Amino acid sequence: MTTPAPTVVPVDLADRSYDILIGPGLLAAAGDELARRFPGSRYAVITDETVAERHLDTVAASLTEAGLGFASIVVSPGEGSKSFETLESVVDGVLSARLERGDLLIALGGGVIGDLVGFAAGVVRRGMRFVQMPTTLLSQVDSSVGGKTGINTRHGKNLVGLFHQPALVMADTAALDTLDPRHLRAGYAEVVKYGLIDDAEFFDWLDANRAEIFAGGPARIGAIAASCRAKAEVVRIDETEQGPRALLNLGHTFGHAFETACDYDAERLVHGEAVAIGMALAHRFSARLNLVSPDDAARVAAHLSAAGLPTKISDIPGGVGSVDDLMRAIFQDKKVKRGRLTFILTRGVGEAFVADDVVPEQVRDFLEEELAG
Amino acid sequence: MTTPAPTVVPVDLADRSYDILIGPGLLAAAGDELARRFPGSRYAVITDETVAERHLDTVAASLTEAGLGFASIVVSPGEGSKSFETLESVVDGVLSARLERGDLLIALGGGVIGDLVGFAAGVVRRGMRFVQMPTTLLSQVDSSVGGKTGINTRHGKNLVGLFHQPALVMADTAALDTLDPRHLRAGYAEVVKYGLIDDAEFFDWLDANRAEIFAGGPARIGAIAASCRAKAEVVRIDETEQGPRALLNLGHTFGHAFETACDYDAERLVHGEAVAIGMALAHRFSARLNLVSPDDAARVAAHLSAAGLPTKISDIPGGVGSVDDLMRAIFQDKKVKRGRLTFILTRGVGEAFVADDVVPEQVRDFLEEELAG
Repeated sequence: MTTPAPTVVPVDLADRSYDILIGPGLLAAAGDELARRFPGSRYAVITDETVAERHLDTVAASLTEAGLGFASIVVSPGEGSKSFETLESVVDGVLSARLERGDLLIALGGGVIGDLVGFAAGVVRRGMRFVQMPTTLLSQVDSSVGGKTGINTRHGKNLVGLFHQPALVMADTAALDTLDPRHLRAGYAEVVKYGLIDDAEFFDWLDANRAEIFAGGPARIGAIAASCRAKAEVVRIDETEQGPRALLNLGHTFGHAFETACDYDAERLVHGEAVAIGMALAHRFSARLNLVSPDDAARVAAHLSAAGLPTKISDIPGGVGSVDDLMRAIFQDKKVKRGRLTFILTRGVGEAFVADDVVPEQVRDFLEEELAG
Repeated sequence: MTTPAPTVVPVDLADRSYDILIGPGLLAAAGDELARRFPGSRYAVITDETVAERHLDTVAASLTEAGLGFASIVVSPGEGSKSFETLESVVDGVLSARLERGDLLIALGGGVIGDLVGFAAGVVRRGMRFVQMPTTLLSQVDSSVGGKTGINTRHGKNLVGLFHQPALVMADTAALDTLDPRHLRAGYAEVVKYGLIDDAEFFDWLDANRAEIFAGGPARIGAIAASCRAKAEVVRIDETEQGPRALLNLGHTFGHAFETACDYDAERLVHGEAVAIGMALAHRFSARLNLVSPDDAARVAAHLSAAGLPTKISDIPGGVGSVDDLMRAIFQDKKVKRGRLTFILTRGVGEAFVADDVVPEQVRDFLEEELAG
C-alpha cells in the first residue's frame, strides 16, 4: 500500500537524536520504515489488550510483509500496568523472545504503554533501543517524545523510571480516528498547552482551526507536528528537566492534585481533562496575582470549554474533597523550598514562566474561591 | 578519629567523573567525606544482614557524627537479592525515607549490594546519585568501579540493569580484614586479571608481593589502587562496553559456564574462583592454538595456584557435568556470529585480545581434554 510521505520532526540530542514521523497510515507502513532504518534487527511489539484489538494485526502484517522477525507481548490496559509486576513480565517476555542488545522494542499504544516499554527498553541488557508508536493524541503530542519513562509506586506516579530516548517515533494520525472523542479532547488539552507556554500565534491558529483538528485532516497533522516541534525544542534545551523543561508542567500541579483527589479514576477524570482545568486555574490564579489580565484568563477557559474540556473544579463529577485535601496533594507533588511552592504561572497567552516563590496561603485562598464558585 | 589520607584514583568520564578513595578506616571517616563532597544531602545506607552486622554501626556513627540525615535499609545476603522483588523493596524504602533527587544512596557491601543499589539509584526519581562502599576485595577492584549495575532473571545473570556511574567510591581496605580468606583469594583472581590483560609488569609485581597483599599493609592498598586504575582506564575508553571493555571478561566465558554448571552455588564455587579457573583455561586454550607458549600458561596457573586458587575443572567439587553441558552454557553466554564464538585469548602475560572467530569445535575439543585431565 502507498502512504503519503509523513511529516518529519527531528529531535536534536547529539548521539541520542531521533525523528518523529507524523501522518496517516504509518502503522501499516511500519515494516518498511523499520527495515530501512534498523537493518538486521528483530522486534518485540508491546501493547495492551485494547490497542491490540485495534492495531496489532496491522503492525504485525506490516512487519511480516517486510520480513522482520518479532514477538508480541500484550499487557492489561490502564494505569495499573505501570507497575513493577508488569515491568517484570514485559522484561521476561523480551528475554524469552531472545532479543539481543541491537534489537528493538516497539511501544504500540498510549502513554501507559510508552512509559512502561521505554522503561523496559532502558533496562533490558542494560539498554535496548525502542520505537514509540503512539496511538492516542495525548501520547502523540506529549509522552512519546522526550524520553521520560517510568512506572508508579504507592508513593506516587512516575517515581521510578529513566530518561531513555526512543530511536524513532511513528505517530499514525489515522489511529486517532478510532480514539473515543473524550480521549481526543483530553489530548487536545496538551496541544493547547504548547500555545499557552510560549506561542500565542499557535494558540490563535488553534482558535481558528479547532473544528478541523477534531474532524481530522491536514489541520490535525499540523497541530500534532507543531506540538512535537515545541516539545522537541524544550527537550533539546533541557533533556533531563533541570530547568526550562518544567514549563511543560503548565496546569499539571493543579491537575495532579485533582487526579489524586479522584484516586486516578479515569471514569471521573482523565489526565488531559485534569490538565485543562489546571491550565484554566493557572491563568485565573495568575490573574488573581495581577500577572495577567482577567480577559486573557477568560479567553483561555473559553477556548478549552469550546473544545468540550472542563475548566472548573465543579466540572469534576463527584467533587474533589476539601481545600485541605487539595493542598496536601499539592505539597506532595511539589518540592517546597523555604516554605514557597513552585508553579508555572503566566503573564499572558504564550508567556508562561516558572515561579518558585509562590506563597502557599495564596494558593489556598484561590482554591477556596474556586471551590466555592 | 584520624585516618591516613587515602589513595585517590580518578575515573575520567566527563560530567560523570568521580573519585575512588582507597585506604584503611574510610568507613569510619565516611561522614566527613560525604558532608564535604555533597553538602545538604541526605542518605539511604543499603546493605545486607551480614555486612550490617560488621560495618553498619561504624558507618551510621560516622554519618551521625557529621550531622547527616540517613535511613538504613537491610536486605538478605547473597545473589538471590539481585531480583526484581528486592529491587522493588529497596526502591520502596528509599521513597519511604522521602529522599529527593539530590540525595544519595550508599551501597555498603559486596558486588551484589553494589549492583542492586546502583540499579535502584539509577531508577528512583529517574536517577539519583549513589556512593559505593565496597567491603569485599572483589567489589573493591572490580564491580564497584565502572557503573555496571543490575539484577538477575531466570534467563541469566545481569540481564536487567543500567550503566549508572557512582558519584564516589570509598574502598575501606581495613574492611577486608573481616573478610573470610576464601573470598579474599577469590577477589585476588580479579587483581591478577589486570596484570594478565595488559600489564606484565604488574603481574611480576604481584608475583613478588603476593604474600604481603594477603597479609594486608601497603602492598594490598597498592594492588587495589593499581587494579582500580586499570579498570578506570578501560571504562574511560569504553564506558558502555562497545569494544575494549570486553577484555575485562578474560576468563569469564569459561568461568560463567562453570558457575552455571554449579547452579551458582557459592558453597561449591564463587565467582573469583570460577574466573581463576577460566583464566588458567584461557591461557592453556591460547597455548593449544599456538598463540602463547605453554610455559606462560603454566606460569599463570602456578601463580593462581600459589594464591590458593583453583586452576583446573577437577578442582571444582562435585564436577561440572559433560562437555555438552558446558558448551550449552557457553553458547548461552555468548553471541554467536556466523558460527564463531568470541573469547578473550592471549599472546602472552599482559597481551590479552578479543578473538571473535573462535571455532566452537576447538573449544569443545579443548574442554574434553581438560575434563579428562
